[in-house]
Amino acid sequence: MKKINIAYIGGGSRGWARGFMSDLVSQGDFGGTVTLYDIDKKAADDNVIVGELFNSAEGALSHWDYRAADTQKEALTGADFVVISILPGTFDEMQSDVHAPEQYGIYQAVGDTVGPGGIVRAMRTIPMIEKIAKDIKAYCPNAWVINYTNPMSVCVSTLYKAFPEIKAFGCCHEVFGTQKFLAHIMQEHTGKEAIDRSEIKVNVLGVNHFTWLTEASYDGIDIFPIYQKYAKEHVTTGCGIQSDKNWMNSAFECDEMVKMDLFLRYGYIAAAGDRHLAEFCPKNWYLKDPEQVKAWHFGLTTVAWRKQDLQEKLDKTARIIAGEEKVEIVNTGEDGVKQIKALLGMEDLVTNVNIPNMGQIPNLPLGAVVETNAIFRADSVHAIDAGCVPQTILPMVSRICAEEELIVAAGMNRDLEMAFGAFASDALVTLELPEAKKLFDEMIENTKAYLGEFF
Amino acid sequence: MKKINIAYIGGGSRGWARGFMSDLVSQGDFGGTVTLYDIDKKAADDNVIVGELFNSAEGALSHWDYRAADTQKEALTGADFVVISILPGTFDEMQSDVHAPEQYGIYQAVGDTVGPGGIVRAMRTIPMIEKIAKDIKAYCPNAWVINYTNPMSVCVSTLYKAFPEIKAFGCCHEVFGTQKFLAHIMQEHTGKEAIDRSEIKVNVLGVNHFTWLTEASYDGIDIFPIYQKYAKEHVTTGCGIQSDKNWMNSAFECDEMVKMDLFLRYGYIAAAGDRHLAEFCPKNWYLKDPEQVKAWHFGLTTVAWRKQDLQEKLDKTARIIAGEEKVEIVNTGEDGVKQIKALLGMEDLVTNVNIPNMGQIPNLPLGAVVETNAIFRADSVHAIDAGCVPQTILPMVSRICAEEELIVAAGMNRDLEMAFGAFASDALVTLELPEAKKLFDEMIENTKAYLGEFF
Amino acid sequence: MKKINIAYIGGGSRGWARGFMSDLVSQGDFGGTVTLYDIDKKAADDNVIVGELFNSAEGALSHWDYRAADTQKEALTGADFVVISILPGTFDEMQSDVHAPEQYGIYQAVGDTVGPGGIVRAMRTIPMIEKIAKDIKAYCPNAWVINYTNPMSVCVSTLYKAFPEIKAFGCCHEVFGTQKFLAHIMQEHTGKEAIDRSEIKVNVLGVNHFTWLTEASYDGIDIFPIYQKYAKEHVTTGCGIQSDKNWMNSAFECDEMVKMDLFLRYGYIAAAGDRHLAEFCPKNWYLKDPEQVKAWHFGLTTVAWRKQDLQEKLDKTARIIAGEEKVEIVNTGEDGVKQIKALLGMEDLVTNVNIPNMGQIPNLPLGAVVETNAIFRADSVHAIDAGCVPQTILPMVSRICAEEELIVAAGMNRDLEMAFGAFASDALVTLELPEAKKLFDEMIENTKAYLGEFF
Amino acid sequence: MKKINIAYIGGGSRGWARGFMSDLVSQGDFGGTVTLYDIDKKAADDNVIVGELFNSAEGALSHWDYRAADTQKEALTGADFVVISILPGTFDEMQSDVHAPEQYGIYQAVGDTVGPGGIVRAMRTIPMIEKIAKDIKAYCPNAWVINYTNPMSVCVSTLYKAFPEIKAFGCCHEVFGTQKFLAHIMQEHTGKEAIDRSEIKVNVLGVNHFTWLTEASYDGIDIFPIYQKYAKEHVTTGCGIQSDKNWMNSAFECDEMVKMDLFLRYGYIAAAGDRHLAEFCPKNWYLKDPEQVKAWHFGLTTVAWRKQDLQEKLDKTARIIAGEEKVEIVNTGEDGVKQIKALLGMEDLVTNVNIPNMGQIPNLPLGAVVETNAIFRADSVHAIDAGCVPQTILPMVSRICAEEELIVAAGMNRDLEMAFGAFASDALVTLELPEAKKLFDEMIENTKAYLGEFF
Repeated sequence: MKKINIAYIGGGSRGWARGFMSDLVSQGDFGGTVTLYDIDKKAADDNVIVGELFNSAEGALSHWDYRAADTQKEALTGADFVVISILPGTFDEMQSDVHAPEQYGIYQAVGDTVGPGGIVRAMRTIPMIEKIAKDIKAYCPNAWVINYTNPMSVCVSTLYKAFPEIKAFGCCHEVFGTQKFLAHIMQEHTGKEAIDRSEIKVNVLGVNHFTWLTEASYDGIDIFPIYQKYAKEHVTTGCGIQSDKNWMNSAFECDEMVKMDLFLRYGYIAAAGDRHLAEFCPKNWYLKDPEQVKAWHFGLTTVAWRKQDLQEKLDKTARIIAGEEKVEIVNTGEDGVKQIKALLGMEDLVTNVNIPNMGQIPNLPLGAVVETNAIFRADSVHAIDAGCVPQTILPMVSRICAEEELIVAAGMNRDLEMAFGAFASDALVTLELPEAKKLFDEMIENTKAYLGEFF
Repeated sequence: MKKINIAYIGGGSRGWARGFMSDLVSQGDFGGTVTLYDIDKKAADDNVIVGELFNSAEGALSHWDYRAADTQKEALTGADFVVISILPGTFDEMQSDVHAPEQYGIYQAVGDTVGPGGIVRAMRTIPMIEKIAKDIKAYCPNAWVINYTNPMSVCVSTLYKAFPEIKAFGCCHEVFGTQKFLAHIMQEHTGKEAIDRSEIKVNVLGVNHFTWLTEASYDGIDIFPIYQKYAKEHVTTGCGIQSDKNWMNSAFECDEMVKMDLFLRYGYIAAAGDRHLAEFCPKNWYLKDPEQVKAWHFGLTTVAWRKQDLQEKLDKTARIIAGEEKVEIVNTGEDGVKQIKALLGMEDLVTNVNIPNMGQIPNLPLGAVVETNAIFRADSVHAIDAGCVPQTILPMVSRICAEEELIVAAGMNRDLEMAFGAFASDALVTLELPEAKKLFDEMIENTKAYLGEFF
Repeated sequence: MKKINIAYIGGGSRGWARGFMSDLVSQGDFGGTVTLYDIDKKAADDNVIVGELFNSAEGALSHWDYRAADTQKEALTGADFVVISILPGTFDEMQSDVHAPEQYGIYQAVGDTVGPGGIVRAMRTIPMIEKIAKDIKAYCPNAWVINYTNPMSVCVSTLYKAFPEIKAFGCCHEVFGTQKFLAHIMQEHTGKEAIDRSEIKVNVLGVNHFTWLTEASYDGIDIFPIYQKYAKEHVTTGCGIQSDKNWMNSAFECDEMVKMDLFLRYGYIAAAGDRHLAEFCPKNWYLKDPEQVKAWHFGLTTVAWRKQDLQEKLDKTARIIAGEEKVEIVNTGEDGVKQIKALLGMEDLVTNVNIPNMGQIPNLPLGAVVETNAIFRADSVHAIDAGCVPQTILPMVSRICAEEELIVAAGMNRDLEMAFGAFASDALVTLELPEAKKLFDEMIENTKAYLGEFF
Repeated sequence: MKKINIAYIGGGSRGWARGFMSDLVSQGDFGGTVTLYDIDKKAADDNVIVGELFNSAEGALSHWDYRAADTQKEALTGADFVVISILPGTFDEMQSDVHAPEQYGIYQAVGDTVGPGGIVRAMRTIPMIEKIAKDIKAYCPNAWVINYTNPMSVCVSTLYKAFPEIKAFGCCHEVFGTQKFLAHIMQEHTGKEAIDRSEIKVNVLGVNHFTWLTEASYDGIDIFPIYQKYAKEHVTTGCGIQSDKNWMNSAFECDEMVKMDLFLRYGYIAAAGDRHLAEFCPKNWYLKDPEQVKAWHFGLTTVAWRKQDLQEKLDKTARIIAGEEKVEIVNTGEDGVKQIKALLGMEDLVTNVNIPNMGQIPNLPLGAVVETNAIFRADSVHAIDAGCVPQTILPMVSRICAEEELIVAAGMNRDLEMAFGAFASDALVTLELPEAKKLFDEMIENTKAYLGEFF
């Protein structure tokens, strides 16, 4: 059995890290060591205990050694794979990202990708990612790097700009959710009982969280006409199903109405949760105010909810460590472990990733980070040509693609004026300029503890 | 002296056509025949008389024969050059384009390029331009074609899509206005008295009416730092000068405040009149309502004004034909005649044009119509590489570039649903979707006399 | 079971067509009708009989109806898939292609791709392929088209130029042969007994028959250092194995010395048979004269051999039809049937194909036909980004890529002067210009029965 | 009058440096200081004396201070412009470059660009150019850099790879010579007496010394049909004129037969001296042996001649310094001083340059150094889009473009095996591989005094 070293940056995480541990032990083809690094060392130490417990959980097929590192350098040295899953700042900063704009009439369903929240979050994230990239260059330049941190495109772009030879990609499950939704529709259509999302073959293109499918099929059947009929019937009522029961995502449900509306307007299948999709569209389409959001059957995820959710996870951790509760292996549906397996040469994998555009989307700028399918094989990731962004959606997609690269430039230059340039023209910021500046300044002020390098 | 044949489509025009006649006779290097074609034959006939009068006006250096053609075919057959300067529909349609949206809180300073007005105007223009392109293919495939009609990018793109081998370019004087403004600033800076706009050397990039200068110099002096200082001092008060006294433009003055504001935000010189620039920016920046427009010192050109202006020109024509008034040769400052001269091989010319992107702007899609400098020589126009659109303005520029191509696709497919896709996500249309649809439908209804092919 | 219609152009073929029939019946997932069209109707009729016999052969899992069409139109009408596998002209023309140049000191190992033979063959092939493309456009525009005819790149390029919306790709087994060779080396290295060529994961790039691997792995092991060692040891002696025992290829063996020599010079694995590879290299490297060919352990395939081989196949057909011999199902190792299965949505397939460059090889011209991996799924083929052609081999690869497109232009323009432009600068034609012209004229004269449209 | 600082690397040169001095003083718009740096300090000191004498020569319009620097650093510090005009090694090395291959039947007319001589010369040049680039980065990063050194493409590419932000271009007069030839033809055609080469308007594309004109006109007249007729009449006899009487070039005449032959074959005007053009073509076309060269009416420039020519120049220098001979201002016809003037913003200039491909030639690789027209203005050089390399010549042009980039990679990696990869497949090297290796090793051995970094 192959033995590998994985460095997990943000290793104190209660959600992603544990899902990853669960996925690791539930396969039996390779094992090794996971080194957890977190600025909250205690959280990493706790996860070491939890990780070791997974080794003896029911269904564990491999064994992993866990250790917590004191420094990023220590974690990275000798790593074959690096996972980046950090929270840039705390939920207090996120409180400002998501809710400060509400005083200005701007509502965000997530607030971590674009919009005022995503942009300010990017400012504090970029310097952290730069530091990680430089440490990877210094301590494990040949490692494969999987990023889960948002804003995804911004983080991946920063990794490549800070260390151009890096072997990195960004991994996001939002497309999977849409595949599940399509699987549900195809079950209804064919009468079959359990269609797995991996059986829904799709051609993916766009930027993370604003990805689109230009082809989708199941068992050789073109899904587009079926989806068209379904969308016409359900766009005003919602799908009424739960497309995603993944324990990590259960709070983030939607009724797919935004997705269906976009399809009927533009002819292609938007492939992310409605909460994300809405944030890339003109403000008044889906996010004008909470009533409109409600009418479109999705929710504005509050940071209060995130804080409570965190507390529940902390309590659960305490119980696990105290032996009052058992760790349970659950298939997260994430592709991270499958990707590692493919990179080790054990099986080919085709899945969607975020990497710089080398031509896989010919009408977006070369070098900008885009999302398409890619094929993973031994020590290689090759993008699959997705074709051009269709003309109908190119105005929105090309704008956001350029905005993300502008955000990266602003962050890497530690230039808040440049960041405001992106902020003021964001799709959700429909304020007059002085108001926009006032909001921006407030949000920067609120989060300045993590913006030291900008002053 | 070389003799050439020029076909002028829209030859009944009182403004552009006469300026062109004036420019033609005021140079002495070549002469020939101008064939005027207009769906208003009477207007063309009148212009034949006016044109002949120019031949004996004071300062005339060449002689031109004028004739009015009964058909487009007749005008184009044998043409060496084709000028396209048409009004798509009448000012009644333009009334709807410009003012119908005001009921929905959308104000347009021009309404002929983008925004609700530009998009609906494009729908009735595209079929006309397609017809012209097909006739050029049939009757004078080797002619050089100069388009002056708006929406410029849309028209040029349609010409190339309908007849890919066409030798066409779009010609617009908006950059010239900015050069004049910069010349004024440099006069102030250097103490020189009369700096011609052609002495202001610029690198132009973008899409028509939303063009930007990434370099500007006068006599080897970099204008950027001087402009920076000037803009800081004048952004809130305006320049207080009249940058453009061209008789064709005198109603369209601005105080350059939008332009200076954009410079201070984004670091590059926006190079079109403020009325145009404002229409490409988020609605609430400069076009929220008439008060805001006033505060930025530019105006909303009403169609009532255009109608009155037309009447004045009609009256003037009547007086000229009646011999009560003389035609006067005035240098329009336009480049059309200089371009013809250059294409005849008489002198090189570097000026800005609108043509499909063959790589002159590497980070905009290949094939999309863009505006950059080009060099005109005997029977050739070559774009000059302008470099990439700077990151700070790429989100806005790439969005509008894609929007224009989407409009072309919608028009050429006679697809109003596709057109609404562009309409709903336009920067000025910040309505909720049902409201946007209501406005769109009204505007289509208002102008349906010219939209027969869409139904 | 799905039922499909396959049109086989060149359906009188004794080699490719029968292998294809064998592959069809040996899978049990789909069936249907194969319509054979051949200018030699008798040959097609014979294959109908043979085809029906395959249905009852041992191991047959599906049933196929065979019929011979009188016209190409009849064969194509209603087709879901089209296979193109024609011999352009007869072996008499090929006699000239391959052997006429020998009088001028030019030796060709195959003579059907590049070199004097490939170029003249292309001239008679292109008009035929154009006709097929036009008929596909007219009678089955949505069909998937698989080309097996050589010169491969030229044929695929012609298909796309004659009908730009065609869904076509070119399919070639030469890379498979190299995978088998690498599998053999890896068996030796790992001690395993039977490594299938499909387990050798490769990144393919280049043009058909001059393809290169920039990555190769088996079970996660990088093959490059192992191949390096192997090549150093065997480059002067040959591999001494038979990499390919496919009954269709048995006459075409090589000892892999050219391949190893190229690897040691250029650092990447040339991935085609040595006979093909040699034809793309400077003449005096491997094809100076028969002695040198022998020293490199490959052969010059004579047309006399091909004629005899054909006679044997004809005799075999006669025996089969007479019931004196049975048809036998043999796995050809070709991917054609797998590709059809993948296009029907039954299983994903990653394999190498020849299609126009849409960015999959960023440093070769867009639109030129190149060979890379692609992923086949329901009704879709997407190229996999292969990366840039490495600098060391780019001079040779870019030259040949441009030469093939020049040949296509010459053929489609029926322009023999343009063809001579390619001929004179081909890598194998190292003659003085007058000599080159003399040879070219002779070869054209020899084959003019099939070049009527050029005169 | 503007005052500028020019650093001249290779400032001991007797040819280029003096021509440059002459051009400098013969214009009266700007003056300044020229700092000469040469590894032969004595030569630079001599040129200081000569330079000062130019200030008082008849026709001098500006004044220049000359000084010789002890180090490259000293020369570059404070420079506004840098001229690079070095001889890499001595004529003894060039003796090997040009004549060693003759023992193997390889004849070179120049031997400084491609072919065995050009490649080996590149190996010793690249490290020198790298050092210059690094010093420019350190001491005058904003200076404009004009390279005259051969191999041109290789030098410019090295400059950009070693210092990507460099403002450099390569300047070559070969296109000028072709313009003069065309001017001669047009004089004959029109009966006019003195057509200046600058009146011949051309569109240039290709790589240095293998440049092509795809458009050429004089006074609006398309030159192509006239040239076609001329070429047909003169291709076998030669033009019988001296196209270039420039004192720097008088030894390098040709009779334009190669150029006309290439035109008749490929349809575009090859635009360099025949001696250069021949070296890019298959060996046996024009350089098979000295007899063939003679039949094509051009010459093989021997290094013995260069040595004698140098001695004459040295003698002349001695006489000038001794006061026995006067310096004379002669218009060299070079564009270097005009380019400086344009970069200072005094007048626009359109001329051909060598810079990395940013899209000006869409079907050659991005980043490869290509030659096209460019427009020079204040502190800016923008390439003019030249369009695609025509299909007929793309095989040769793309090959050589890739070869030059391979040579750069070999040189910058100090990798002689990689260099041999280029050497063995060069158009002039038609040897068997062992012979090619023998020649290469000899040439490396002969010149190893300048190849220290490779061992």
